[in-house]
Amino acid sequence: MRLTSTALLFLLIISCNALALKPQLLGRHTVQTYSHHRSVSYKTFYFDQQIDHFGFLENGTFKQRYLLNDQHWHKEGGPILFYTGNEGDITWFCNNTGFMWDVAEELGAMLVFAEHRYYGESMPFGKESYSNAKYLNYLTSEQALADFAVLIKALKKNVPGAQKSSVIAIGGSYGGMLAAWLRMKYPNAVVGALAASAPIWQFIVPCGEFYKVVTQDFTISGTNCSSNIRRSWAAIDRVSETGEGLQWLSQEFGLCSPLKSSDEVYGFKAWLQETWVNLAMVDYPYEANFLQPLPAWPVKAVCANLKFDTGVSDKQLLNGISKAVRVYYNYTGDAVCLNTSQTATGNLGFMGWYYQSCTEMVMPMCTDGIADMFEPQPWNFQAFSDDCYNLFGVRPREDWAEIVYGGRNISAHSNIIFSNGNLDPWMSGGVTKSLSKSLIAIMINGGAHHLDLRYNNEYDPESVITTRALEVHYFMKWIKQAAFN
Amino acid sequence: MRLTSTALLFLLIISCNALALKPQLLGRHTVQTYSHHRSVSYKTFYFDQQIDHFGFLENGTFKQRYLLNDQHWHKEGGPILFYTGNEGDITWFCNNTGFMWDVAEELGAMLVFAEHRYYGESMPFGKESYSNAKYLNYLTSEQALADFAVLIKALKKNVPGAQKSSVIAIGGSYGGMLAAWLRMKYPNAVVGALAASAPIWQFIVPCGEFYKVVTQDFTISGTNCSSNIRRSWAAIDRVSETGEGLQWLSQEFGLCSPLKSSDEVYGFKAWLQETWVNLAMVDYPYEANFLQPLPAWPVKAVCANLKFDTGVSDKQLLNGISKAVRVYYNYTGDAVCLNTSQTATGNLGFMGWYYQSCTEMVMPMCTDGIADMFEPQPWNFQAFSDDCYNLFGVRPREDWAEIVYGGRNISAHSNIIFSNGNLDPWMSGGVTKSLSKSLIAIMINGGAHHLDLRYNNEYDPESVITTRALEVHYFMKWIKQAAFN
Repeated sequence: MRLTSTALLFLLIISCNALALKPQLLGRHTVQTYSHHRSVSYKTFYFDQQIDHFGFLENGTFKQRYLLNDQHWHKEGGPILFYTGNEGDITWFCNNTGFMWDVAEELGAMLVFAEHRYYGESMPFGKESYSNAKYLNYLTSEQALADFAVLIKALKKNVPGAQKSSVIAIGGSYGGMLAAWLRMKYPNAVVGALAASAPIWQFIVPCGEFYKVVTQDFTISGTNCSSNIRRSWAAIDRVSETGEGLQWLSQEFGLCSPLKSSDEVYGFKAWLQETWVNLAMVDYPYEANFLQPLPAWPVKAVCANLKFDTGVSDKQLLNGISKAVRVYYNYTGDAVCLNTSQTATGNLGFMGWYYQSCTEMVMPMCTDGIADMFEPQPWNFQAFSDDCYNLFGVRPREDWAEIVYGGRNISAHSNIIFSNGNLDPWMSGGVTKSLSKSLIAIMINGGAHHLDLRYNNEYDPESVITTRALEVHYFMKWIKQAAFN
Repeated sequence: MRLTSTALLFLLIISCNALALKPQLLGRHTVQTYSHHRSVSYKTFYFDQQIDHFGFLENGTFKQRYLLNDQHWHKEGGPILFYTGNEGDITWFCNNTGFMWDVAEELGAMLVFAEHRYYGESMPFGKESYSNAKYLNYLTSEQALADFAVLIKALKKNVPGAQKSSVIAIGGSYGGMLAAWLRMKYPNAVVGALAASAPIWQFIVPCGEFYKVVTQDFTISGTNCSSNIRRSWAAIDRVSETGEGLQWLSQEFGLCSPLKSSDEVYGFKAWLQETWVNLAMVDYPYEANFLQPLPAWPVKAVCANLKFDTGVSDKQLLNGISKAVRVYYNYTGDAVCLNTSQTATGNLGFMGWYYQSCTEMVMPMCTDGIADMFEPQPWNFQAFSDDCYNLFGVRPREDWAEIVYGGRNISAHSNIIFSNGNLDPWMSGGVTKSLSKSLIAIMINGGAHHLDLRYNNEYDPESVITTRALEVHYFMKWIKQAAFN
């Protein structure tokens, strides 16, 4: 399948960003040790899943990968914390969900990380999985949820001692949506869910909300920061009107592929826009390597380069922007040049998430340049649909996600924690107010994208420490409830 | 598609019976009046549904039929009673669900009867819908539930005044399972569900339970009734050992196609077995025409022919059986001969239900001749699966229904009434004890298959009168609850 660059760029802008990286693959079928902050070890397994849970003509199976650690598990009743894998390699989520590793001992819990079909090694049609629309047809959240429910049933049946174990779904971002939906659609499988930074309402909130939060992060992180970024788009347009200007821009930003025409400027701006979005998502209070290696409070570090007043020349302004961007792309100092065809996402997760955006995960996004710091771009469903059709041969269904996952009206469900960080753009589509006694919203002040799922850190704000404690409190409550049922 | 007679008979026995008739079709697109007990009038509509809700490659749509009556509807807030159509023509369910017509005025309710895909006129691929496994691939309960959820959303959006209407799902038998599952999977769409005689646990109860209830009905309906039926199988075998005996049997039963070899005796016995099952299902306290025109308490009428003691000769015994069978097939006196290839089910519903049994609706059935009055027949999943494969090119998935619909563990759900009659064999797979304050089981003493969904009748036992009042009470409670949400 070929991506046309225009369609790709369009998608870059409207679907914002896939949340996951494609990390290096690890070995198979053996005990693995991967060190991040701390040592993490797990066994890797492969489970036979139906390719199609919702039809019977396609009766093939594929190997779903899952990782398991039972070092702290209390056999005969200890709970299972089950990570509902999202759009990327599961080993990467495993290593970026330190929270589960931190609480395993206290809870006597088994940890399971289940890979999402069509990501990492869990390919329904092997290397051909992305080769055409027919093979891609089974990449949906409903199929992924069914995979999780089937796997949980098999684990409880086959792992000695797990019959009475309560299972708690945990996930972040799209994985958090899956955790919530798993509890909503298969409450028999999991006693509760932690949906961290899960924008389950992104389908139905006003299209401008997401970029407003991004902008707000930059506004509070430095004087003139968001207004200088807002000014940068026109400055780029003006500078790139001449060949000399394009050359200057390319040199100033140290681009690997210099800009050759003003047509390419559109892509350059899209790349910058996605960079600002990613920075807002990973605005953590300590040095971290989630989407990229970054300093503590990276948005502040970016904004430190953009403090000048709004009267500076275009070139002075863009000089600041180029320094700001390097905070994201070259914190390590190792980058030889900057590559505008990449932001953070690995290729595979990227394609899969685009396909999902082009089918059921339709999250309208728009900017107006007033309430946000970006160039005005309205939401145009028809153009989006046409691009999807050109790319994948399928068209999105605008209303489906709301129907299948209940929209605003989810109060009949229970035992779900929705945690969100006020710095995280995805909180715009999140559940930020509790809906009932057992549909709990927790707001993490000073938190970026699912900060609560990360390892404990000495620089954690009080808010996330409290949040994690509350999450564990609810886990224990759900486990106790289940024991009485 | 051709049915091999052995496979067909095997299926006849293990899947028991489809619950629906294929009645004569009515006109289209116009106001219809069909009189049953009382005059019933509705408008017929056709709604564009996705053929595949769970994949995006097949983007075609089909016309789903639904019937609507708003004569008693209180616009601006009056509820919608939504019949979740099961395996047959929706006009037939409409006319056999008198309960909804009886309570419409009291509730100020709109009535909607939505047809199940692949039944009646709602054919995803027109006349080709049953022609091959590819076209049948979208005949699943999950797709049907999605149809209902999408239709409900559209009604609430498009019918002036319906925006604030609470929707209550109502269904009987498989339709009752769908009503319960609609509330379980799409609680945003319906505030509650009445699942009448809905065997949602038939997938997981011991395989002999169903036929035990059938037997019990005959045991209590006349002296020696079930024991004489139990003795009849061996008597049939002995009599049919000779050509003369086959001829006698054929004449005695007035068969349209005389039995020609002892191989055909298997099918003859399967037909008898299904007849006894159907009689137990429709053992209503008054003259009725559900599966066939029948007298009041038809099982008693059958048993009146089987009171003789157990010492009678084979031919005397079978003479009694032949009279008993005529209660079912010739109550009107119009039958010229008895046709062993039909019991009550219409062809279309019959094939569709077999396909569903052969995919996800796997309900294990068995007999042992001791706890029940039938010939011993163990449950053999592999043989069943092979027959399904030969018939439809697909294989059943034994565990899927339990996983997707939660098995025994459904206590996280709410606002569902499970009503069952103690005479109804399907109560063996039903929820007969309340599971929580809002998952209510009601047992109807003296009730056969969803008696509560039928019109009020002067011969109704007190139990069903109380049941219907309780059902309306819960409807009102749910509507009130929803108004506060």
